[in-house]
Amino acid sequence: MTRPVRYLKGHGTQNDFVLLPDPDEGLDLTPALVRALCDRRVGLGADGVLRVVPSESSPAGSDGPTWFMDHRNADGSTAEMCGNGLRLFARYLVHSGLSEPGELRIATRAGVRRTEVRGDGTVRVEMGQAIVGVRSMARAGGREFAGTAVSMGNPHLVCLGAWPVADLDLSRPPEVDGAMFPDGVNVEFGTVGSEYVDGVDSQVRMRVHERGVGETRACGTGACAVAAAVLGGATGVVAVDQPGGRVLVEIEGGNSWLTGPAVFVAEGTLDPAWLSAIEQA
Amino acid sequence: MTRPVRYLKGHGTQNDFVLLPDPDEGLDLTPALVRALCDRRVGLGADGVLRVVPSESSPAGSDGPTWFMDHRNADGSTAEMCGNGLRLFARYLVHSGLSEPGELRIATRAGVRRTEVRGDGTVRVEMGQAIVGVRSMARAGGREFAGTAVSMGNPHLVCLGAWPVADLDLSRPPEVDGAMFPDGVNVEFGTVGSEYVDGVDSQVRMRVHERGVGETRACGTGACAVAAAVLGGATGVVAVDQPGGRVLVEIEGGNSWLTGPAVFVAEGTLDPAWLSAIEQA
Repeated sequence: MTRPVRYLKGHGTQNDFVLLPDPDEGLDLTPALVRALCDRRVGLGADGVLRVVPSESSPAGSDGPTWFMDHRNADGSTAEMCGNGLRLFARYLVHSGLSEPGELRIATRAGVRRTEVRGDGTVRVEMGQAIVGVRSMARAGGREFAGTAVSMGNPHLVCLGAWPVADLDLSRPPEVDGAMFPDGVNVEFGTVGSEYVDGVDSQVRMRVHERGVGETRACGTGACAVAAAVLGGATGVVAVDQPGGRVLVEIEGGNSWLTGPAVFVAEGTLDPAWLSAIEQA
Repeated sequence: MTRPVRYLKGHGTQNDFVLLPDPDEGLDLTPALVRALCDRRVGLGADGVLRVVPSESSPAGSDGPTWFMDHRNADGSTAEMCGNGLRLFARYLVHSGLSEPGELRIATRAGVRRTEVRGDGTVRVEMGQAIVGVRSMARAGGREFAGTAVSMGNPHLVCLGAWPVADLDLSRPPEVDGAMFPDGVNVEFGTVGSEYVDGVDSQVRMRVHERGVGETRACGTGACAVAAAVLGGATGVVAVDQPGGRVLVEIEGGNSWLTGPAVFVAEGTLDPAWLSAIEQA
């Protein structure tokens, strides 16, 4: 690799990413390089990598949007979609001049998603349909919680209650009904609050345990699932306060939209010798 | 802050730092900014910050070396010295053209330290005298270990044995003699190996539990303490293999020297809006 490799480090509600602009697809993004970039001591450190590539090479094909979000998990595997990452990705397209401000359509491995980049640094992204399912139970920290299954494409179990979510012990995975969730489930705990938020129907404080990961500071699909459960299938707007920050979720019949911050922390270039060492390892 | 703030992210044996060049001392490095920079989700993420400032403003004064390593811990407090950070700092001075290659004298809060930056990216740094003390005990993972107290300015307890260090449970602080170490102690566990390393008297595999921090991937003073204990106060060279990588320690009567890698990962500028948000928080 002879050219300098540029990157941007940023986060959406503290779900953090290394974004790699690669408009002419010259970057050989191996799983080993992804793992090294995401390693929080050896590399830059991130929950995942977002490579910016033309959508011609994406599943959406050349008739779709201009850019494809090539999203990788920290373990090097490919990822489908992430609302927090998509906000950062959309804001980068406008920031870098690769796209015009306003509504953008972006290709992801979960299909094409509409986004809207706003002047204040927040981004509104299309998250797809929230399907509210049946009731179930979760056990966490020695207590039992009633929950509602919600599908956002991935499975969620939303437990709403009046207890303070800050007190919950989520250091271990909540126990759930294994027959109902054979592939595991993301479990959200939420308390509907009394805070008045302008233009919003409800405000919820939320914590989340993501399957295979542990407790995280924010989950985009989780926030949408919580909003859908709070609204009970109705149309509305919910402010969801996660440890990583606040997002707004709009639920309308067949779709949901997530609006939240997209924060740029730093930009720069990877050290060429570091990159060579990873490639040769 | 109107000018872009440049940084370099790097590590020494996976002890990682954000280095901030500040030759004209225009940077207002508040504890809040240090904490935000070191936060591994909100900022760049690091164990500490190394600010590069002229030594006129250091305790060494204007008759001392040219540059002062203004070292801060991730919690925002000032730090005295760190061998892993000093290697990165010295290499940066040469890389950036602020100093000539070869031997450099660098001011730290623990006094002036000599360093030598080599063409292969490794750096040799002066670590001061290792004073081998009396025997004591540590208990970790339900087992008892005999150890030797070693002072490197900070206190160490070095436990050498034939058991594989990889099996040790260091998730909790080892229990030590509280009367002997009233301010706590860094505890090293080492196995003297049989690996032949060119030019070296002994090879040791080491893990370390740092007081107030937990297990870390490398500790510069800890590696020197282990070498001193292995050599039993004699002169010699020891290869110390830590989870974060290998360093060489030379022990000679009144001084010790640590040689190891200084890895640059990336360079760039902090986002101005991010910086403003931290300053206004």
